[in-house]
Amino acid sequence: MSETATAKPEKFPVTPEVKKAMALIKRGIDTLLMEEDLEQKLARSAATGKPLRVKLGLDPTAPDIHLGHTVVLNKLRQFQNLGHKVIFLIGDFTSAIGDPSGRNTTRPPLTREQIETNAKTYLDQASLVLDREKTEVRYNSEWTNELGADGLIKLASRYTLARLLERDDFSKRYAENAPIAMHELLYPLMQGYDSVALESDVELGGSDQRFNLLVGRELQRQYGQEPQCIITMPLLVGLDGTNKMSKSKHNYIGITDKPDDMFGKVMSISDELMWNWYDLLSLKSNEEIDQLKTDCLNGRNPRDVKVLLAKEIVERFHSKEDADKAEAEFNNRFRHGAIPENIPEITMTCSEEGLPFPKFIKNSGLVPTTSEANRTIQQGGAYLNGDRITDRTFCVKPDTYTLQVGKRKWIRVNLVLE
Amino acid sequence: MSETATAKPEKFPVTPEVKKAMALIKRGIDTLLMEEDLEQKLARSAATGKPLRVKLGLDPTAPDIHLGHTVVLNKLRQFQNLGHKVIFLIGDFTSAIGDPSGRNTTRPPLTREQIETNAKTYLDQASLVLDREKTEVRYNSEWTNELGADGLIKLASRYTLARLLERDDFSKRYAENAPIAMHELLYPLMQGYDSVALESDVELGGSDQRFNLLVGRELQRQYGQEPQCIITMPLLVGLDGTNKMSKSKHNYIGITDKPDDMFGKVMSISDELMWNWYDLLSLKSNEEIDQLKTDCLNGRNPRDVKVLLAKEIVERFHSKEDADKAEAEFNNRFRHGAIPENIPEITMTCSEEGLPFPKFIKNSGLVPTTSEANRTIQQGGAYLNGDRITDRTFCVKPDTYTLQVGKRKWIRVNLVLE
Repeated sequence: MSETATAKPEKFPVTPEVKKAMALIKRGIDTLLMEEDLEQKLARSAATGKPLRVKLGLDPTAPDIHLGHTVVLNKLRQFQNLGHKVIFLIGDFTSAIGDPSGRNTTRPPLTREQIETNAKTYLDQASLVLDREKTEVRYNSEWTNELGADGLIKLASRYTLARLLERDDFSKRYAENAPIAMHELLYPLMQGYDSVALESDVELGGSDQRFNLLVGRELQRQYGQEPQCIITMPLLVGLDGTNKMSKSKHNYIGITDKPDDMFGKVMSISDELMWNWYDLLSLKSNEEIDQLKTDCLNGRNPRDVKVLLAKEIVERFHSKEDADKAEAEFNNRFRHGAIPENIPEITMTCSEEGLPFPKFIKNSGLVPTTSEANRTIQQGGAYLNGDRITDRTFCVKPDTYTLQVGKRKWIRVNLVLE
Repeated sequence: MSETATAKPEKFPVTPEVKKAMALIKRGIDTLLMEEDLEQKLARSAATGKPLRVKLGLDPTAPDIHLGHTVVLNKLRQFQNLGHKVIFLIGDFTSAIGDPSGRNTTRPPLTREQIETNAKTYLDQASLVLDREKTEVRYNSEWTNELGADGLIKLASRYTLARLLERDDFSKRYAENAPIAMHELLYPLMQGYDSVALESDVELGGSDQRFNLLVGRELQRQYGQEPQCIITMPLLVGLDGTNKMSKSKHNYIGITDKPDDMFGKVMSISDELMWNWYDLLSLKSNEEIDQLKTDCLNGRNPRDVKVLLAKEIVERFHSKEDADKAEAEFNNRFRHGAIPENIPEITMTCSEEGLPFPKFIKNSGLVPTTSEANRTIQQGGAYLNGDRITDRTFCVKPDTYTLQVGKRKWIRVNLVLE
């Protein structure tokens, strides 16, 4: 075929505005596939005024979310602030099926009612991050029920076995002779077909979703659509600064946590993690964040910058008033003196019951013996997250704490289950 | 699990009648899987009076059938004569889809009208072999449309990829990195599900269908049904005694062939092939056929036995009257003398246009030169299939012939395309 025979798609001008939007979108992400395509989509949207359609697929099984789950929502909110349309795709079709082989007990079939309740809970929570007005909620049963067995067969004809087996977990299981039930191979196709039905321009997901998002791209091409760009987001590192945020690691902030707790927990993270959280959780512009970094290099106390982040997060999930109050309360607790910078940090273990406070102090190394710890508590010289603790029978549960003994001894303790 | 905990299925008595039925069913077949199961099914049917459900799946694409296609119909007719129910399963669901990948151009999607026309043509032809009263015709769209995309996913969950890749052509293609489109893997499941929907006891098919029939058996077990037994039939050897009967090899008998042609063609086959055809095409009992063999061993002319077969076949596809007339006509043609036994047989080649008759005679070796052949024709001493040919410009087309030159020289010629 000669070159002239191929119609070249129109090129839209990449204005400084478009470049700025690209920089914001790229902030904090894990991968962006087809970067040039995205730039053109943004340029076209800027030129035509037609917003992009940005898809996020949801499995309405675990509606209770923590801050880690909001990373992807934050990115979606950035798209909304740039004027684009966010589509929440509720995978109700597959949720209603569950895992019919019964092998995966964590995926029981859900009733219509459960699906709707879970989806509503999730949306209520997500609405704290997103602009509800610019969010379209869709259920994939809309088109998958209509698809029928024949439609599914036609869909399946668009993809080869070999390409599906490129997915890491499939190829690994196939190589190990571990069974792969045939329906498992159909799910990525169904998910990809959602992108066709929604005509999505961009799809977001966790980094483990990369393969499935690519299937969507490929199917769109096969159905004669412009293929979507793909953005995967990293998992948020938790309060301990090491592990991914998760409930089981006790290093998380629930989005329904009380304002004071939320504020204190954000204040407990390291300066390094703070900048990562800014990238992933803040709606500040890149320029604003760069300015804060410059300020710190010029001598501003990072603690003040952390306060700004803590307030932004509390305000998002509660209110501006709550954020102001939490800040005041936090300062009040630490009225006997600010937490010094760069305090040491250790990890300790405990059983399910937690650790008695005197033992907690002794194990932290701030005092040499448990009786010394007991004495300190009696004298009112022991503080946990700024609160004076005078009850010697108090039991410390797994979490991350700032422990203060007397006026000058500080340590940050990650208490984890042994 | 202790032995007593497993409920033993009732054992039905294997009567001499049941043994006789088994022997008839086994005649001429390629394979019978789960022979003991079939014996028990037959015994149960005999004891309870409930007929077995015997399934044959059809792809309504090529309705025009020849004698080779009737091998499986003949086996079904034997089941009917034993009192069982035959189910013609028209695969209209998959035919309407065709090969959506477009790779297989021999499988275009068919319209509803085409499917029904083809199915009707096929059934009209098949009714010449079968007892139409004991034949149930079903279309699989009945249950597959109802299945929906979710039903198909649930169905797919019953089978693993590894088990599907055991099918010879799949494993070969996978090993060679030849693409396997995902829908191809779904078709055996759909076909197998037909057995579930029909609760079939026995399924028949060509030997190339063995894998798919086993999928049906396995799915029935998974759906809590008694699994079907499987009978595969061999392909019929054609008039040339070597190749499978097919239109492209010009070694076939069309079931719409005229009575005389049909009769003559059957008479042209070798004695050895005749016994094979008796097994595969005759509705005579095993005992009757054994008796004919004994007769021949005791000196009866196999030609007479071949006449019986030819008449049975002509009667089936035309009428008893036609069969009698064809026999008389055949004898009339050979009034100048019966074809001797064990005449030599050769294979010759020709182009699409065929072979001029004089050259045909010369190449057969019955005369040394073409001019000698010309002379023989002029003198009225050359016969093709018993017909005197006096036209020297006559052109012989690919087929199987008995050539006679003069009173004593005979040869059987398979004329094939070079």
